[in-house]
Amino acid sequence: VLSLGVDIGGTKILAGAVSESGQVVAERRAASPAQNPDQMVDTVSNMIQQLISEVGPVGSIGVAAAGFVNLERSNILYAPNLNWRNEPLQLRISERVGQEVFIENDANAAGWAEFRFGAARNFQSMVMLTLGTGVGGAIVDGGRLMRGGFGIAGELGHITVMRDGRDCGCGRKGCIEQYASGTALLRSAIELADSSDPKGERLRELRSAAGELSGHQAYQAVSENDPGTIELVEQASKHLASAMASLVAVLDPEVFVIGGGLSELGETLLSPLRSELAKQLPAAGFRPVAQVVRAEFSNQAGVIGAAELARESESKL
Amino acid sequence: VLSLGVDIGGTKILAGAVSESGQVVAERRAASPAQNPDQMVDTVSNMIQQLISEVGPVGSIGVAAAGFVNLERSNILYAPNLNWRNEPLQLRISERVGQEVFIENDANAAGWAEFRFGAARNFQSMVMLTLGTGVGGAIVDGGRLMRGGFGIAGELGHITVMRDGRDCGCGRKGCIEQYASGTALLRSAIELADSSDPKGERLRELRSAAGELSGHQAYQAVSENDPGTIELVEQASKHLASAMASLVAVLDPEVFVIGGGLSELGETLLSPLRSELAKQLPAAGFRPVAQVVRAEFSNQAGVIGAAELARESESKL
Repeated sequence: VLSLGVDIGGTKILAGAVSESGQVVAERRAASPAQNPDQMVDTVSNMIQQLISEVGPVGSIGVAAAGFVNLERSNILYAPNLNWRNEPLQLRISERVGQEVFIENDANAAGWAEFRFGAARNFQSMVMLTLGTGVGGAIVDGGRLMRGGFGIAGELGHITVMRDGRDCGCGRKGCIEQYASGTALLRSAIELADSSDPKGERLRELRSAAGELSGHQAYQAVSENDPGTIELVEQASKHLASAMASLVAVLDPEVFVIGGGLSELGETLLSPLRSELAKQLPAAGFRPVAQVVRAEFSNQAGVIGAAELARESESKL
Repeated sequence: VLSLGVDIGGTKILAGAVSESGQVVAERRAASPAQNPDQMVDTVSNMIQQLISEVGPVGSIGVAAAGFVNLERSNILYAPNLNWRNEPLQLRISERVGQEVFIENDANAAGWAEFRFGAARNFQSMVMLTLGTGVGGAIVDGGRLMRGGFGIAGELGHITVMRDGRDCGCGRKGCIEQYASGTALLRSAIELADSSDPKGERLRELRSAAGELSGHQAYQAVSENDPGTIELVEQASKHLASAMASLVAVLDPEVFVIGGGLSELGETLLSPLRSELAKQLPAAGFRPVAQVVRAEFSNQAGVIGAAELARESESKL
């Protein structure tokens, strides 16, 4: 039986029909009407209906969104990049499509895809860090997705790594999101290019050639082994390893799964991350060391995880 | 049916027979032969046998110890204050007393006592922080004690709050244990008394009168509302609130339970903790605020929790 998954982001919506083994067998994309809740419900419902008309009736429907989902999985409490405040998303979409939908946070859904079918499929306890525009997270302990007391656990981007550090959108200072997201790394690259530091030379060249310095150029500099850019990645790794060491103290996972745009840097990111984590581990030498692996799904993780969580939720009813 | 609980610490062992409602109906104490594993097994087994001869056969036996317990709950992997390295405690005590015993980390056991019968009995998701010689922790999410991938989750004393901060026994720097434990607060009080700062005057007087400055004198200064000592408590509160704000991002508990020796400071500690946490909360204003309450059990928490966890474990077999 197929399950549908929808992943609502700030810029695009992805929907797919997903098999029991986590394969996406049909897919739809749309721009995200991020500022208009009514239009969002329209767009998502239409995508669901189109997919059902393509693949036939589905056993379950899961919708993942970039926001705080309440413990009952009915409302989006707060979504900084979507214009929602306590939006009853589950009810509104369920009514429109004539079938119960299941709501989940997007990072949790992506983590569940990796846990069930991807990089953490052979583990029972996992922490996933999604390094993209921000830093998202998901926690699985003993085979169970951790949701917290109000439904908002796993907001791992907002662990403090620097007292009185950079301002964060969450209102705090020094959150890891400000040091190890794609956005933060690009900001560091732009600062380096803007400086007169010789280490920024290659980034300046790439900016001149492309007319701008975006993630693409930073990625290219890394693939060319540009020492200045690689140093920035290593600095981000150190900060991230510090947050991960605190996460080991709290959560003690068997494995960290690193996803999101930054994970495309592969071993350039993961290798310093592993060695820094080993150094910064509390009680190092007296405990097993968590593995650090790259996520296996990229853009489809949210769709696959939302579909699978919905399937499992239906099967429990 | 009664269950036995034993709490093994670095200086003393406490054992008790505990009712289904969490009442300790008989108790034993002994000094802890911390450096001698064989003698430890002897002492604990004797205490168990004495209690059984006093109260009659018991349904289950739980043993809590200050160390890393493996996921299978059979061995103590590492106990900094006890001379154990991968000690098969479950097997050794079970053989001696002729009945299966159940092993748990002491902070987890104390947390479970508060969750089942104490300050968190009306909640489903809790974080307990035990502020004593060190800082211990326990996590309950959705009614389930979090154990981690290797059995060592909830070592909350080793969250970093100060980059390149004070050295910690775990090998890291800047752990919250170095800022908000009883030991850390006493160290600050001694530093203040040793200084020529007028704020340390009352502490100096109490030290002269008693011949030493211990937790007792520091506690007295706080109860007299000595501004210098209260300022130290408030500084500790700020550090602790910073760690708790990161814990909210990760775990999203409904309630924090504060236990251990420092919790005897009551509202002098809890009141600044609440206001600081509210300030430092990620996405403050867009999420429910976790409550901060004082633990209800003090010394008996480990005994009660170990007994109850053993009871629940037996009932699942």
